Amino acid sequence: MRIIFCSPGPKPEPWLAGLRAALPEAVVDNWQPGAPQADHAVVWAPPQQFFDEQAGLKGVFNMGAGVDALVKRRLPPGAVVVRLDDAGMAVQMAEFVCHALIRHFRELDAYAADIARGQWTYRKPLLRADFPVGVMGLGVLGERVARAVAHFDFPVLGWSRTPKQIEGVRCIAGQARLDEFLAATRVLVCLLPLTDRTENILNAATLGRLRPGGYVINVARGAHLVDADLLALLDSGHLAGAALDVFRTEPLPPEHPFWRHPKIAVTPHTSARTLRDESIAQIAGKIRALERGEPVAGVVDPQRGY
Amino acid sequence: MRIIFCSPGPKPEPWLAGLRAALPEAVVDNWQPGAPQADHAVVWAPPQQFFDEQAGLKGVFNMGAGVDALVKRRLPPGAVVVRLDDAGMAVQMAEFVCHALIRHFRELDAYAADIARGQWTYRKPLLRADFPVGVMGLGVLGERVARAVAHFDFPVLGWSRTPKQIEGVRCIAGQARLDEFLAATRVLVCLLPLTDRTENILNAATLGRLRPGGYVINVARGAHLVDADLLALLDSGHLAGAALDVFRTEPLPPEHPFWRHPKIAVTPHTSARTLRDESIAQIAGKIRALERGEPVAGVVDPQRGY
Repeated sequence: MRIIFCSPGPKPEPWLAGLRAALPEAVVDNWQPGAPQADHAVVWAPPQQFFDEQAGLKGVFNMGAGVDALVKRRLPPGAVVVRLDDAGMAVQMAEFVCHALIRHFRELDAYAADIARGQWTYRKPLLRADFPVGVMGLGVLGERVARAVAHFDFPVLGWSRTPKQIEGVRCIAGQARLDEFLAATRVLVCLLPLTDRTENILNAATLGRLRPGGYVINVARGAHLVDADLLALLDSGHLAGAALDVFRTEPLPPEHPFWRHPKIAVTPHTSARTLRDESIAQIAGKIRALERGEPVAGVVDPQRGY
Repeated sequence: MRIIFCSPGPKPEPWLAGLRAALPEAVVDNWQPGAPQADHAVVWAPPQQFFDEQAGLKGVFNMGAGVDALVKRRLPPGAVVVRLDDAGMAVQMAEFVCHALIRHFRELDAYAADIARGQWTYRKPLLRADFPVGVMGLGVLGERVARAVAHFDFPVLGWSRTPKQIEGVRCIAGQARLDEFLAATRVLVCLLPLTDRTENILNAATLGRLRPGGYVINVARGAHLVDADLLALLDSGHLAGAALDVFRTEPLPPEHPFWRHPKIAVTPHTSARTLRDESIAQIAGKIRALERGEPVAGVVDPQRGY
C-alpha cells in the first residue's frame, strides 16, 4: 500500500514519520510532481495537479474538519473524501467558543479596561436567561459546542439542515425555521460547513433578526459572513460585538477594518487546530478500515459538499 | 415572625421587597440601632453591635458563600449561621474559572497582543495533558468548577479536608497529601473557605511545589494568598501568571503591585456575584424549614469555621 502526503502548510517530516509509524505496512511519500501512484492521500489544500496525477486514489483524507477547499477540486473518480471528525478539535472548539461567550456575557473586557485605568468597579450582573446561545451547524463540532454551552446553564438553541436531538439544546431544523432560530438567539455561533447554500449566510437579513445586543462568534469559515453587513450592524448598535476566528482572506489583509474594530475580537484561525498525533491515529485507523471494506465516519457527500 | 436585614453593601430596598414578597407572613425590617428583636437575620458583614442587640436570633443567613467575616463576630448563643449554597453562584464560578483557564492555556492574551500589533501569528498548540488543573476546596463551588474543567478534557485533581468522590476528578484529601496534590498540579484554583487553617495557604512553599509554568487562579479570599510570595515566584519564572479576583484589602489599594503586573489578571471580586432573586428564594425556603424544625443545607460549623 502506498500513501502520499500533500500539504503546503506544516512541515511534512513529522507527518511522514507519524504515518510511517502508524502504518508500517505502507510506503509513505511526500508528494512531488511525477510521484508514484498512491492508494490513499493525506492532504490539506492540494493543487489540482495533485489530483490530476493521482488518478487511482481510493481515499483522500483531509487534515481538517472543513473540506470546502477540497470539494472544489476535480477529484479522482474512485476516491472518497474523508474529513477529520473530532481528533481533538471538538474540545478545542468548545473551549474557544465558551471563552468568547463568557468574556462577552461577564463583561470581562469592560472590567479589564477599568482595572487598566486603576478603577475598581462593580457592574450589575447580567442574567444568563437574557443570553440565549444559538449554534448553527450541529455536526461533531457544533454538538460539542452546544453541550459545553449548556453546561453553563445558558439557554441553548441549535439549527441544522437535518433534524437533531441533543439533550439540553432546543434543536430547530431546516431553512423554513431559520428565522425562528435567529429571532430566539442573542449569541450566534457559526459552525456550519461552507457550501453553496451556507456561503454569505451571516448577512444583514439574518444577523438583523438576532435579539438586540446580539453577538456573533464565527469559527467556521470567513465566507459564511458578509463582512460589510456585520460592520453596519455593529455601527447601528443592533449587534454588540463579534469574535471572529476565520476570514474570507487569510491571513486577514492589513487594511481590513476587522483588525482594529473596538467591538471585534480577532484571532488568527486558531479556534481548533489540527493535532498531529490524534489526526494520524484517526487517519491510519480509517485507511485500514477502508482497505478492509468497512464503513468509516466522516465520508464527504459531494452533493451536499460536506 | 420578624426578619431583619443588615448589609452595608447593596441598597436594602429591593432585598426588603423581595423578602416581604417571599415571606408574606413575616415582618421584614432594615436594621438600625434599637430595632425590634427579630427571629432571623439576612446579613452581609454586619457590625458587632448588630449581634449584641439582636440576641434572640435563631437563624443568621449570610448573603454569600464565604462566612469568614461572620464567624469572627460574637454571635447570639442560640443562632445558627447559614451560608448561601449555590443560589446561582456555582455556575458563575465555573464559567469564571474556565474562562481564566482557557485564556491562559490557549495563549489568548499573546494572540491578542499579536493582533493588536497587526501580526497574524501561529503558535504551536499546547497539550492539555501538560496542564493538570488542581482545585483546592471541593464544596458546592469547588465541585462545580472541577466538573466544568473536566468537561474540557483537562486532567483534574481536587484537594479537600475530608475525602470526596467526583467523577472525572482525582480527589486527594488531607494535609498529609497536600504536597502530592501540588506536585501534580500546574493550574491551581483556590476555592477553599477562609479559616485559621487555610489563611496564607498559598505561599512560597506551596506555590513552589506546583509544576513549572504554574498558574494560580484565586477566587476564594485574598487572605489565602501571601502576596509577596506570589510576586517572587512570578519574578523567578516558576509561575507563569495568575488570575486574582480577591484581595487582602478590597478594593485593592491603589499602590498595590498587582494592579499593573504584566502576568496578573485582576478582577474586582466579581467571579461569583450574589444574585438577589435566587438568594431570596433560597433564604426564604430555609427560614421556613428552620421554623418547622427541619434541617437546612449550608449550616456553618463554628468549630471548622465554614
